[in-house]
Amino acid sequence: MKLSEIGEREIVESLLKRFSIPFDDCAFIEINEHYLVLTTDIVYEKTHFPKNSRPYDMGWYSIAVNLSDIASKGAEPVGVLAGLAMPREMDSKFFDEIIEGMEDCVNEFGGKILGGDTKEGDKILISVTAIGKVKKDEAMLRKGAKEGDDVYVTGELGKGAFILSNERERILHVKPRIKEGKILAKSKKVSCCMDISDGLASSLYQLMKINNVGFEIYKEKLPIAEIARKDVEKAIYLGGDYELLFTLPLGYGKNLERKIDIKKIGRVISKKKIYLVSDGKRKEIKNIGYEHFK
Amino acid sequence: MKLSEIGEREIVESLLKRFSIPFDDCAFIEINEHYLVLTTDIVYEKTHFPKNSRPYDMGWYSIAVNLSDIASKGAEPVGVLAGLAMPREMDSKFFDEIIEGMEDCVNEFGGKILGGDTKEGDKILISVTAIGKVKKDEAMLRKGAKEGDDVYVTGELGKGAFILSNERERILHVKPRIKEGKILAKSKKVSCCMDISDGLASSLYQLMKINNVGFEIYKEKLPIAEIARKDVEKAIYLGGDYELLFTLPLGYGKNLERKIDIKKIGRVISKKKIYLVSDGKRKEIKNIGYEHFK
Repeated sequence: MKLSEIGEREIVESLLKRFSIPFDDCAFIEINEHYLVLTTDIVYEKTHFPKNSRPYDMGWYSIAVNLSDIASKGAEPVGVLAGLAMPREMDSKFFDEIIEGMEDCVNEFGGKILGGDTKEGDKILISVTAIGKVKKDEAMLRKGAKEGDDVYVTGELGKGAFILSNERERILHVKPRIKEGKILAKSKKVSCCMDISDGLASSLYQLMKINNVGFEIYKEKLPIAEIARKDVEKAIYLGGDYELLFTLPLGYGKNLERKIDIKKIGRVISKKKIYLVSDGKRKEIKNIGYEHFK
Repeated sequence: MKLSEIGEREIVESLLKRFSIPFDDCAFIEINEHYLVLTTDIVYEKTHFPKNSRPYDMGWYSIAVNLSDIASKGAEPVGVLAGLAMPREMDSKFFDEIIEGMEDCVNEFGGKILGGDTKEGDKILISVTAIGKVKKDEAMLRKGAKEGDDVYVTGELGKGAFILSNERERILHVKPRIKEGKILAKSKKVSCCMDISDGLASSLYQLMKINNVGFEIYKEKLPIAEIARKDVEKAIYLGGDYELLFTLPLGYGKNLERKIDIKKIGRVISKKKIYLVSDGKRKEIKNIGYEHFK
């Protein structure tokens, strides 16, 4: 069977089972009272970058998507390792601008560039490993949501899906929620957390599976970005928003709402279904989102 | 200017300077009395794998070359993160065999598979980040060689360059010197160490630059593999051997020679030149070795 017939999520799931890796977007290494959290993400010219993307934005994006995973654990970035596969005909100025984008993202969100590797490749591929550090009792995991918990999201939804093609550099100019993640982690109340880079719907489905619960999402409470208001469903199903989706025990979010830009969008239910509630009616959210190979 | 006109080593050197990264093949994170050492290496179908390589060997190799860098620090493997870019038309059996090779290499040399990423790509590219752990006072660095030190190498030289095309799987079946590295590290006497994956000559030049010293290598003492004896120079210049090259204070190697397969091949000199000594005559070894982009 071809990989395209299986799809990325099933491939990853079978690998996680095989290696007894927790269903998380980061790996954890215990160091005394801390976890080092590690994540690796490949970004590839053909599948990730809009045509004529600026090299600076490619570099920024390659770091930002990894730091978004670090943020979802509530961790402080320690550093990144970057592997770059580049065509031999690439101009060194273009290469320098990629590096500059990486450097600026690290400088803005924390950590440092610790090392890397450069290799020849037909197309641009950047593979980044990011390392973060978080106190064990503050770490936010994907597993832990309980019936009755409130569901929250940082920032706004739908920007990723709706940014116009003439603003393509903004798609890549992802701002990982490092600051928000750290504040959430310090509260020690977050029962589960992940970023919604594959889309809100797909992320909810992943959390449903891991936590053995369901979700009720209130359509009118979704913080849909101005640009996306004409088609809220698209904002729910398409990826590209690097916001944090998390759960808190009922009512605990009130205090946090005053400190950071988060919105309550729903609640955890016992039934393993995901509903969108609007005007008192509820309909099922489908399990659709961006997936590689498919 | 194109990357092909600059070459990998100059590109890497400018990046190391820019980010104040030590001239090493690993990054170091201080954790109390230990260093976590991290390294990342990309292997790519087009530039690394002989035609018709077996998927199992590709997977093995992708892990082994990273563990070789971990070995050169004297570190114990903690785990690896693996990013795989694969064509969507790849058969899942082929993919499984890549994973099996990775798994077997980790099982043989230590650590575990902690996580990873899978993405679509035109060609097979595997990006591995390996994490190791070593006591601070045992860590072997690239910098530290002093005039008068003995120069040593593990195992045999020239296998990488001479393995026949009908034995191509052996090229990929690299055995990282984890055990030897740990024993060397425990001695706390190694003044500098690196692996010679780019070739002995090229590695000596890199150590010369970092340590501001030169080397005298005794041709008759080189442990040239049986298969490579017909052309010793080729064994010196070509890469593909994942042995450790290291220096020890004069005479300190005697004791270690009884424990592990290492051979004294030369000595550190103050003049920044690299000589091959044979029959009392010496000639300069040239700075040639495998280099990407060039």
